[in-house]
Amino acid sequence: MSASAGLAGPPVLLEPADLHASLRDPALRSMNFLNEVANRFPKALSFAPGRPAESTFDLADLHRYLDAYARHLVERKGYDTVRVNRELFQYGRTKGIVHELIARQLELDEGIVVDPDAVLVTVGAQEALWLVLRALRATEHDVLLAVAPTYVGLTGAARLLDLPVRPVREGEDGVDLADLRAQLRAARAAGQRPRALYLVPDFSNPSGRSMPLETRRRLLELAAREGILLLEDNPYSMFRSADADQLPTLKALDTGHHVVYLGSLAKTCFPGARVGFAIADQPVAGGGVLADELSKAKSMLTVNTSPVSQALVGGLLLEHGGSLLRANERQIAIYRENLHCLLRGLADRFDGVPGVRWNTPDGGFFVVVTVPFAVTDELLEQAAVQHGVLFTPMCHFTEDPAATRQLRLSCSSLTPAEIEQGLDRLAALIADRS
Amino acid sequence: MSASAGLAGPPVLLEPADLHASLRDPALRSMNFLNEVANRFPKALSFAPGRPAESTFDLADLHRYLDAYARHLVERKGYDTVRVNRELFQYGRTKGIVHELIARQLELDEGIVVDPDAVLVTVGAQEALWLVLRALRATEHDVLLAVAPTYVGLTGAARLLDLPVRPVREGEDGVDLADLRAQLRAARAAGQRPRALYLVPDFSNPSGRSMPLETRRRLLELAAREGILLLEDNPYSMFRSADADQLPTLKALDTGHHVVYLGSLAKTCFPGARVGFAIADQPVAGGGVLADELSKAKSMLTVNTSPVSQALVGGLLLEHGGSLLRANERQIAIYRENLHCLLRGLADRFDGVPGVRWNTPDGGFFVVVTVPFAVTDELLEQAAVQHGVLFTPMCHFTEDPAATRQLRLSCSSLTPAEIEQGLDRLAALIADRS
Repeated sequence: MSASAGLAGPPVLLEPADLHASLRDPALRSMNFLNEVANRFPKALSFAPGRPAESTFDLADLHRYLDAYARHLVERKGYDTVRVNRELFQYGRTKGIVHELIARQLELDEGIVVDPDAVLVTVGAQEALWLVLRALRATEHDVLLAVAPTYVGLTGAARLLDLPVRPVREGEDGVDLADLRAQLRAARAAGQRPRALYLVPDFSNPSGRSMPLETRRRLLELAAREGILLLEDNPYSMFRSADADQLPTLKALDTGHHVVYLGSLAKTCFPGARVGFAIADQPVAGGGVLADELSKAKSMLTVNTSPVSQALVGGLLLEHGGSLLRANERQIAIYRENLHCLLRGLADRFDGVPGVRWNTPDGGFFVVVTVPFAVTDELLEQAAVQHGVLFTPMCHFTEDPAATRQLRLSCSSLTPAEIEQGLDRLAALIADRS
Repeated sequence: MSASAGLAGPPVLLEPADLHASLRDPALRSMNFLNEVANRFPKALSFAPGRPAESTFDLADLHRYLDAYARHLVERKGYDTVRVNRELFQYGRTKGIVHELIARQLELDEGIVVDPDAVLVTVGAQEALWLVLRALRATEHDVLLAVAPTYVGLTGAARLLDLPVRPVREGEDGVDLADLRAQLRAARAAGQRPRALYLVPDFSNPSGRSMPLETRRRLLELAAREGILLLEDNPYSMFRSADADQLPTLKALDTGHHVVYLGSLAKTCFPGARVGFAIADQPVAGGGVLADELSKAKSMLTVNTSPVSQALVGGLLLEHGGSLLRANERQIAIYRENLHCLLRGLADRFDGVPGVRWNTPDGGFFVVVTVPFAVTDELLEQAAVQHGVLFTPMCHFTEDPAATRQLRLSCSSLTPAEIEQGLDRLAALIADRS
């Protein structure tokens, strides 16, 4: 091979400016920075990641789920061994193979009635999100609105498509409808075409906030009137406090196909399956629904979602009568206790402390704490080094100046004892700085 | 919910023109059309899909691979149970967890020496392809070159990015270097910036053609001189005839980081794992290699590749001493026999038949047959209805007029007896038409 060294010419050195701008974007650097900090301080107590609790993970479950799904193919679908093996090993249906089980789960647990053919199974909700944005970005005039503060994954997916995102104020009710109307007007005045509003109506990431029922109805009405879609991302609604009412999702209230529902199974099954889905039942002129259009793009992006991964999710559903609510009884108890512990711990330590405030979500993984000093990436490093505690600066989720003194605490992947200890460390940091 | 019916306003009807143009593109419609024909005629003998043979699929293997990989984590990496479960269930490293095993396999089987940190594990080679194109499409002037006829997945991935693709003639040697130079000149004269050339140097899809060693060296030299990357897609090189020499991949000859290697494991492991990879060892000014840049985009597209799927691939590798060549002994024998049977069957039936010609690849899945009449989608339908045989019209892979009388035969997923019977049916079709 040394003979080719002379032939091959000067070695390549790529300039960042010659690669797509998204790769230099703060949204994509955020994710890397946060991961990198966590990796550098593995012993710090971390309120940073929105990861599921690990105490329920058990390798034996994977074997059992796989067999349960294979048995289902034989007993319910009448498949022989050759066909079972083909289903799991071979290329398969682009829209997925567990669409019927997902449609049934949505009806059982969420009261969402949907044609399984409008379900597109994806490589996590992240792929579903990207596919929807790809379809809606038809011209350079198309823009997206997003309730801010915003999930970093939405911002990042939009950057990959050069799709502008206009923030809409969250307010007390999960979306400030007056600001939404103002942003729609401003976008149109600027020659833009707003296509959709992205939001997490239940226990939002990062704010923990939820949308009251009346706001949900008014938002649907506004979307219909304004001709925009609502992209409803719902990873957390199952994890609500014991005394909190279950509110209908936007999709359950949607009688006019205004809502594309983005389903994550990372928290209700497990992240390593990398299975999520979109409900995209919007009719398309000429035939089919939006899910069919998204599946064309998916066939050129990831071809199809691993049928083995889908079988694991399917097996878990089958073991619990098709219900994720039943499958998640332990997890729901864990997250309830953790959130209760976090909120009580904050009250124990910071009630009456000047400049320290926090919201009190009745579910989900996240609480936002306001402190009397700037919360920067530098502060995060100092918190890790000097106090052994990690969190997420809210400036990663919004450009709102109010967020510069806020941090997000996630309680999903800690034990109650770790939460107590982590809050002691946070209290020491706040005492140092105040 | 009926109360919201009035509020929700008129139901949505999406116009295709309001969705991204790729969704109406012939490349994306091709894939759908071909799948749809196959589904409508499940009893036809099909030379159409490049799918792997199914006789080696066995559900028990999945259980064994998973356990082998978990054992490897315990015995070789010293993980405890908690950490093994975390590795398989939790969110994980964006660049993947089987990168070291993949790097070792490449060295063992292909003589490619690569730093595992330059390996990005992806959801099939298709995602790797899309990510590379995303990174290289930095401005509207950036274009891609592709040896034509071209794999539909390349064309489709480029369409999702509005990235123009300029065809380069394949010729006898896998790429016509004079035409490549001419296309580079023409692109630049048109104000375009050519970034890379996509090709399948070994047993190309769809043509079955391979590139001689001397052409490989000259192509690398040309790439270095012209400042373009080579995107080498290599799903088939393992499946060569017993008397064919193993040629070094472009990547094995690449001393200057001019080659991004796209690895598919769909044929050498199984498609349902949805695991592929890119080797992207190109240094980037400011630090890191191209794989690190691609991983930023991946974190916003699919987050990470399912660790369970990666464990299945890892377990298969571990069971065979890290070598895919050893893991594929049965598959190699099957494809050799199938290709031999197809080529002998073509000779038996069509030697001396006016206007009927075919190439004679010494490996891979595909043979191209030229016939004395137009091969259209309508003809494919008639072949299915009247003769019970399916193939792929070459017009789906190129706009070259010469291809309008060509069809692609794939022999990978049929038995020798089915190949014989299918060729009889093809002979009947050709007799009807000639």
